[in-house]
Formats: sequence, structure tokens, C-alpha cells
Amino acid sequence: MSAGPLAGVTVLDLTQIYNGPYATFLMAMAGAEVIKIEPPGGEQLRRRHGDGGATLPFAMLNSGKRCVVLDLKAEEDRAALLRMAAGADVLVENYRPGVMDRLGLSRDVLRGVNPRLICASGSGYGGSGPYRDYPAMDLVVQAMSGVMSITGEAGGPPLKAGPALCDFFAGIHLYGAIVTALFERERGGPARAVEVAMLEAVYPSLTSNLALLADKGSAFPGRTGNRHGGLSVCPYNVYPAADGHVAIICNHDGHWRAAARYFGHAELIDDPRFLRMTDRVANMDLLDGMVASWTAALPKEEIFQGLAAAGVPCAPVRELAEVVADRHLHERRALLDIEHPQFGAMTVPTSALCFEGIERGLRWPSRPLGADQALVQRPGGEESP
Amino acid sequence: MSAGPLAGVTVLDLTQIYNGPYATFLMAMAGAEVIKIEPPGGEQLRRRHGDGGATLPFAMLNSGKRCVVLDLKAEEDRAALLRMAAGADVLVENYRPGVMDRLGLSRDVLRGVNPRLICASGSGYGGSGPYRDYPAMDLVVQAMSGVMSITGEAGGPPLKAGPALCDFFAGIHLYGAIVTALFERERGGPARAVEVAMLEAVYPSLTSNLALLADKGSAFPGRTGNRHGGLSVCPYNVYPAADGHVAIICNHDGHWRAAARYFGHAELIDDPRFLRMTDRVANMDLLDGMVASWTAALPKEEIFQGLAAAGVPCAPVRELAEVVADRHLHERRALLDIEHPQFGAMTVPTSALCFEGIERGLRWPSRPLGADQALVQRPGGEESP
Repeated sequence: MSAGPLAGVTVLDLTQIYNGPYATFLMAMAGAEVIKIEPPGGEQLRRRHGDGGATLPFAMLNSGKRCVVLDLKAEEDRAALLRMAAGADVLVENYRPGVMDRLGLSRDVLRGVNPRLICASGSGYGGSGPYRDYPAMDLVVQAMSGVMSITGEAGGPPLKAGPALCDFFAGIHLYGAIVTALFERERGGPARAVEVAMLEAVYPSLTSNLALLADKGSAFPGRTGNRHGGLSVCPYNVYPAADGHVAIICNHDGHWRAAARYFGHAELIDDPRFLRMTDRVANMDLLDGMVASWTAALPKEEIFQGLAAAGVPCAPVRELAEVVADRHLHERRALLDIEHPQFGAMTVPTSALCFEGIERGLRWPSRPLGADQALVQRPGGEESP
Repeated sequence: MSAGPLAGVTVLDLTQIYNGPYATFLMAMAGAEVIKIEPPGGEQLRRRHGDGGATLPFAMLNSGKRCVVLDLKAEEDRAALLRMAAGADVLVENYRPGVMDRLGLSRDVLRGVNPRLICASGSGYGGSGPYRDYPAMDLVVQAMSGVMSITGEAGGPPLKAGPALCDFFAGIHLYGAIVTALFERERGGPARAVEVAMLEAVYPSLTSNLALLADKGSAFPGRTGNRHGGLSVCPYNVYPAADGHVAIICNHDGHWRAAARYFGHAELIDDPRFLRMTDRVANMDLLDGMVASWTAALPKEEIFQGLAAAGVPCAPVRELAEVVADRHLHERRALLDIEHPQFGAMTVPTSALCFEGIERGLRWPSRPLGADQALVQRPGGEESP
């Protein structure tokens, strides 16, 4: 069964950890035949059991893929890879730049066996430029990209953002680049190699802050805790609730008036201290304190429902346990509860890409190391045991 | 001039702010003919001058697009849109779910004029499910998705991540979904409508933390400041430098030994308190304190170069001003310094998607409101003035 917009596309997947595997996960979910090629012992994420928690990341990112083992340092297995490449559409890797060349698997070699093969690379800094060879991981790219410089309390130290956003921004951009190359090739164009660097993939998400820097220069506030990055919107913050916290944004006067009414303080709507955005911003400490005193008395879900009904952007700050169990995500089949054949009960995501007429699902859960070894083509057309 | 893998693809772009415009920006950079259709007065981002800093976000996300104005609440302009839709490949919007229907521009209506049109929608929570109609903005989705619950100091309040990661994760996923649909259509498949929800697009970036939650249950640490999310890697932190901060990760014993040698403390390599990862983790406070005392004496760039040369993942925590001026990003043409015809000197990004054989560039800088109004098709084949 291979329904889906990428049905019929064969992908050789040499990727590891998060960046590359997320790109090929989305390809698998869209119907591609993804053959995950791991070194003996398995890719790093499969082997990371000592840390705790490695089982679920592997399962989350490898649904719907086939799994084979090749030792690319061995001549025989490299030859097997090249035989497979002859019949594939895409080869993806996220080794450090230069590794493929050293393995004897340069783009030229790969194209020698298949001029129609699209070669795709993900890395921290890209295959060119002065930073090419620096070791990169999500935390490190968060530092290099400036993400940390704008995360944290005003006056406090730089902080990492909790999510592995550099890894995953790179992975989804890599997906986009690959499918774009497939489209061009399908139209009769060349099989163009593509690459994505983590540092470049995360940069656009800094747009607001870059703009404020350009505008304010040395007065750029940098870190602002949960306040607006430019300190120019109020109320805009995370406020305490009786049972946690809520995020509230009043982007314009209408939002503010609706919020004041909801909290039973309609008398403040005409208060000159809070009349226009510039007034509210000038009295930010005062107003944030008042809003906090209102929210602290109510449960977060009640505030959320009340303000949302009034059209004010608001949400409870949810713990991950609440997110995993979220009825909306389950109803939409963005998340599925499965009984994994190796790992037991778990909640895993499907693709965030929704295609009309195709129900979201996993195809199959992540598979054991080498489970599809028969797909490795051995000389003389025989397949491996 | 329309070189690029998406050359020949025509996109009607009704999007606003960040999410949709980032998707269509990447399409324009890849060579598509993107016609940005704005309401009278311009889309919200163009009008957000009062906040300061709105000029640059608009310029960053709208290079290479054509700009026309249509009032979709007016019958005549709706008719003009439908005439344009008859000859387009893709129509993208990121209104709140239901708005297109209320405008009389449902998928059925659009397909009535062009069965080959790919309709694409970006929204906070998606076009179905119980949260469909909640107002969503980046801060709010950071709260709903659990991003805030894992960002911040241990024991401190939940914090937003500085970047607008929910908006941009949604935008790049939307790009991926659209190009996937274009590929399927090109192969003879249907013109499938696609959609992406911000909440679902950010979820995979939580993989590590979700895994730790599944593994540790009520012992899940939640926020850990700059330490490893599972508190199971050390050294792993942001440490003070003489002139700022550095991020350092020692993912295995080899990294640690190389770091200890670099800092002139090879004698600690055999110290039983730091021998294996479990030892270092057990003595995390002590070791983090020692590393901090070493780093505090040195400039961040010197530590970066020294550790990187030793193969240890490391980076300076850079301020945004350093990132904008980064020689690596400029050398790779990921960033360009331009003289914008409306806004003057600025630094803007090109696409993070690199295609072999195509030099990255802007095609052209963002254009004034209605600059390409001649593209609007008026009745009888005449085009508007």
C-alpha cells in the first residue's frame, strides 16, 4: 500500500538523529518508499538508550520507513548502495560536510550510477563557507543564530529555547527542497542536488526581533521575558492563573476592551491610562500587574474559553502531558495512540502536512534494525538474506 | 526572468503576516510567479508601522513577489480573483478557518473556475476539530503546544522562546505541502487541497522532551534552563565568557577529554568524579562550576575556535547584530545587503533552500502596494490600469 502524493518515489535515507530523519519521515508519510540505511548497530538515535527516552524519538521519526543495514566503510556494502542508487529517485544524508566524499560516495560517483538521482544534504552550516566544518548540534546553532540572545528574562542570561527548533527547521526545509527538486525533475528539468543548513533555516523565525534591532539599534531590548519583543504591545504576557499560567495578547484596542469586559473591569476602558496602545505601553508594569491579579483568581482553562469566546488571542500554558493527550490533536489524527510492536504503548505524531482525501496515519510503526534487509540488492540480482 | 525549479508555477497569494507569506516567499525564491493579493491599504504587516520595525519584516518575506490590491468584499474584485484563479496553479491563504467560505471563495467555488487549482490553507489549529475557531498567534500557540512549559529556568516560570517558531514552522510546512501537491498533480494525480496547522507543525520539535516525559513520567524535569532537557549530559550548558557566553556540549567521553585538555585540565580526565557520563552527571553542579571558571577567563570567539578545532560542539552566544553581519551567511548568499528602493539600506535573507546550479538572490526586493496592478484581469480581457 503506497497511496499518497509521493507514491512511487524511492528514497535512500542515510540520515541520523533529527534533522534528516524528520525530512524523510515526512516523505514516508506522504507515500514515498523510504529505505533507511543504518550502520551496523543502528543509527545514533536508535542506540541512545543510555540517556533514557531514546525509544520514543526513534519511533516518532521513523514510522513508515523500511530499515536495512549497510557498512559504508566496506567495499561490498558501498557497492550494494550504488546498485540501490541506480534505481532510486533521492538520496538524503546529514553527515558532516565531506563525509560522503571520504566514503567514496561523492555526488559525481552517485550520478555516475544514476544521473536522475537527487542528492540531498542537511548540515549545521552548509557545504561551503568558513563555518562548513564546525561541529553543529541544536544547542550550538541556537547560540550561533542568535536564538538564545532573544530568549530569557530581561536582564537575565541568554537561554535556550526548549524545542530542538534548529534541527527541525532544517529537517522540514530539507523536505521542501527535496520535493521541489522532484517537481522540477518531473517537469523535465535536471536532477538538482539540494542542501539546507540549520543556521539558515532558523534565521527567518527571528524576523520580528531583527526588525526591532534594525529599527532601534542600540536601544534594542534583546530579551524581554514573556513580553512583546519590542515592548510595544500591552497586555501581551504570560500571566499566573489559579492552576498554572495563561498567555494573553491584546493586539489592538478592541482586544483590550473585550478583555477588560471579560474580567469585569469595563470601567477601565475609558481610563486615560489605558485608552490607546501607547497609553497601555506607557503603563505596562501597572497594567500587567492588574491583569495578573485578575487571572490569578481563575483556572487557566476558564480564562482561555472566556477570552477566546470574546475573540481575544489567549491560551493556557500547557504541560507536555496535556499536549500529548490533547483531544483536538487526536481527533484530527495529528497524534495517534499506538501499541508499538517493539516498544509498547506510546503516542506518536503523523505528518503535519494534510492532504485532502488522504486520512493521516503511520503506514506502519518504526521497524527493527535490518528488518527489511531483503531490499539490499546483492550482485547477480540475488537479494541479501 | 524566471529561472528556478518552480518556474512556470503561478501562485495567488492571499496571505498575511508571517505564516503564509513565508511559504509563498520560498515559492517566489524558487522561481514561482507569486502574485500577492492585498486588501485596500495593504496586508497587516505592511500597515504595522506604528510598532516600529514593520518595514523590515515586510521586506524580508515579500521579495520576488508581484503586488496587487483586491477588495474581496466587493463583487467586482471577487470576480477578478476568480478570473485570475482560472489560470493559476495554487491559491494560498492563512485567514482564520471559515473566512474564505464567508467571502464566497470556498474550495468548491474556486474549483468551479479551475479544477486544477491547488488550494492551500495555513491556520493556528487547522480547518477541523474543537479548536478550529480559536484565535491563534505565535505566543498563544507556544503556550498551547507546550513550548513554554519546557523553556525557562528550572524552578522559574514558563517562558516563550524568542523566535516566532510556530508561525515559521507552519509556513515552511505549508510550503512543503504545496510543492508536494504540485508534484502529485504534475504526475497526473488530482489537484489536492492542503492544509497545515501551527500547533501540529511545532509538535515534532518537542521530540526530546516528549521522550523524556514518556520515560520519566512525574520525574520529568520540565524546564532545565540551559542544561540538557533530561539532565543526562554534562558538560552541556551555556557558560560565561570574558565578553559574553558560550554554549558547549560534551556528548560523549571523547568530547569531555578534548575539552578538559583544551582548558589545560588534562589531570581531570582520569578523575573518578568525571570519568564516565554518569559520573559527570552525578557531579553536574561541581563540573559546570569548574567549566564556568575556565570559560569566564577567555573571549567567546577564542573558546569557540579552540573547542571546534578539538572537535567539541561549541558556539559563541551571538547577539543579533553579529548574526546579521555574519561573514559565513553573507559569503553563502544566505543574507544580502541591499538598498531597498522604498526602505533604504537593509540586510535581507534569501531562501534557506539551496539548489545546485542556481545562485541565491532576491529576484527583486519587496514591491509597493499595488505595484503590479496591471496583472489584475478585468472583464473582456482588458487589464486594470
